[in-house]
Amino acid sequence: MVTIQDIAEKLNISKGTVSKALNGAPDVSENLRKSILETAVEMGYSRTKHKRDAKRLCVFIENMSCREPNDFGYDIIVGFRKMAEPSGYVVEVVPLDAKMQKQTPYDEYMLQHNYAGALLLGLSLSDLWLRQLQTAHTPAVLLDNYIRANPYTCYMGVDNAEGMDLAVAHLRSLGHRRIGYLSGGLGSYVNQSRYTAFFHALRKNDLPDDPHLAGSDYFFSECLQKHLPALLQQKVTAIICSHDLLAHTVMLHCLERGIRIPQDLSIIGFDDLPLCAYTIPPMTTIRQDRTQLGKSGFYALSSLMDGVSISTLLLHAQLTVRQSTAAPGETTQK
Amino acid sequence: MVTIQDIAEKLNISKGTVSKALNGAPDVSENLRKSILETAVEMGYSRTKHKRDAKRLCVFIENMSCREPNDFGYDIIVGFRKMAEPSGYVVEVVPLDAKMQKQTPYDEYMLQHNYAGALLLGLSLSDLWLRQLQTAHTPAVLLDNYIRANPYTCYMGVDNAEGMDLAVAHLRSLGHRRIGYLSGGLGSYVNQSRYTAFFHALRKNDLPDDPHLAGSDYFFSECLQKHLPALLQQKVTAIICSHDLLAHTVMLHCLERGIRIPQDLSIIGFDDLPLCAYTIPPMTTIRQDRTQLGKSGFYALSSLMDGVSISTLLLHAQLTVRQSTAAPGETTQK
Repeated sequence: MVTIQDIAEKLNISKGTVSKALNGAPDVSENLRKSILETAVEMGYSRTKHKRDAKRLCVFIENMSCREPNDFGYDIIVGFRKMAEPSGYVVEVVPLDAKMQKQTPYDEYMLQHNYAGALLLGLSLSDLWLRQLQTAHTPAVLLDNYIRANPYTCYMGVDNAEGMDLAVAHLRSLGHRRIGYLSGGLGSYVNQSRYTAFFHALRKNDLPDDPHLAGSDYFFSECLQKHLPALLQQKVTAIICSHDLLAHTVMLHCLERGIRIPQDLSIIGFDDLPLCAYTIPPMTTIRQDRTQLGKSGFYALSSLMDGVSISTLLLHAQLTVRQSTAAPGETTQK
Repeated sequence: MVTIQDIAEKLNISKGTVSKALNGAPDVSENLRKSILETAVEMGYSRTKHKRDAKRLCVFIENMSCREPNDFGYDIIVGFRKMAEPSGYVVEVVPLDAKMQKQTPYDEYMLQHNYAGALLLGLSLSDLWLRQLQTAHTPAVLLDNYIRANPYTCYMGVDNAEGMDLAVAHLRSLGHRRIGYLSGGLGSYVNQSRYTAFFHALRKNDLPDDPHLAGSDYFFSECLQKHLPALLQQKVTAIICSHDLLAHTVMLHCLERGIRIPQDLSIIGFDDLPLCAYTIPPMTTIRQDRTQLGKSGFYALSSLMDGVSISTLLLHAQLTVRQSTAAPGETTQK
């Protein structure tokens, strides 16, 4: 275990100076502080290993809102706090952006701000910190991002395979045989994972897994103008979408074109956002319980901080059946 | 939430009688007790929901030894106790067999013995309780067994995909291009999962995923006499085995036939049993930390008992490199 003493010896300075720098004391020059932090990170020094300092946790959030009760991140953070605060942790929520990631490496940021561990929400595959997390030393739980072979990181999310399986099995039991899939851009881990899970679910439910049954694009417009018509041409009678907002857009688009949901086309979303109860018709979707996601995030993080290196923690998915799915009727494509 | 009152009303008997039956009082007839337990289970009554009773946990163990420090189950149970007992739980270890499963359904057994939750080690896919667990109400964490869509069950184990990926990447970095796989019988979830993970790892590491590169059988003798020669004929220069004991048997068999490990053939096991350090040569293997598995089992179970329905909890796999792997030399097949 690397101590403050080790860092002091390496830099040939006093232990007091190292301690001051790590605790942000004003009488250490900015250059010296930076060099001490970098050395500490290089040597694998981390707050977690020094329990008496370690009562501060950080939730980093990017590409996601969390201010209002309806926002996707809101309940996750509430769930996380519900577990962390009674255990004596202070939780701070910090919005993350590319500039900040470029400015300060992850481990250094955590040391600098005296955080024992982090929950990271909404990072995309191109994020700089995601690369750094492959070798980071400060415990990190990532929603919907998987880091291979780093014992200090854990992937947390809903069981996408189970969710897709429930959705496909539900449609199959209603009588659907040709089921399509529309997805957001495949530049995110969660979209990749759900895409794979969809085809896996088709095979598991003895349905043909023709690659033409899926289309994906970062832009909704492309999904609507290119992939949706292609799926209808393939004579699908139901479409599962990678997330609720895309499903909702598809429903509105169909409404405009006289394609009746669910008589002509069944639609299933993913996430069960609050809006799903209020779409026309109310949307059948795969539920991920956001408060439970937050609580699990704390379970996983405490486990990493205790040296139990969890790689993956998934929540059970649930199917919420509303009115956007029914037995296939006659398709009235126009 | 189902209460004792509800059960009493359903059966039209007094609350006191139900309570006595659930607590095993001697003045309730065996027939009445059985009928009360069955009704309680049917209605979804479970101890977990009544926290004041709920300080007993059970570890069921089957097809696995746990008496000696070298046994696979030993450290798992130690790890589980290390977490559970300081939290105020009494942990009991109960050997499980087919007769017992036939005699008493899982939920009923748990109620009868006043257990709030269970860790189940070593169950095979044909076990009766495994089927019952699909609809069980009493929290259960299963080592290496996955139950779909039951919020009261969690699959716990090592990250097999990560482990296989580390093994294949290690062999590839040594220069191996044709890698074979030998597996125990595919009647267990863990063997199925590692089998799939092997081919996934080949593709991920840009190696051909010819199905002839794998062979599996419940019996070691079949693996040695049929599949091992077939793999050598395929000119593999390395073999990964689904578990250490199989790898060890392959090593002994090769030794007898003058196939040198690792000069002629590299071997990788899975599990890192204590014996791996003492094989000739010492075995390279994928490590699953058994104490951490036990600790994770308790994390998962507390989470289920708190109503946070974790579906899957995986531990990071680690590669332990010893002397049974090296760069491929000239194969001296006989």
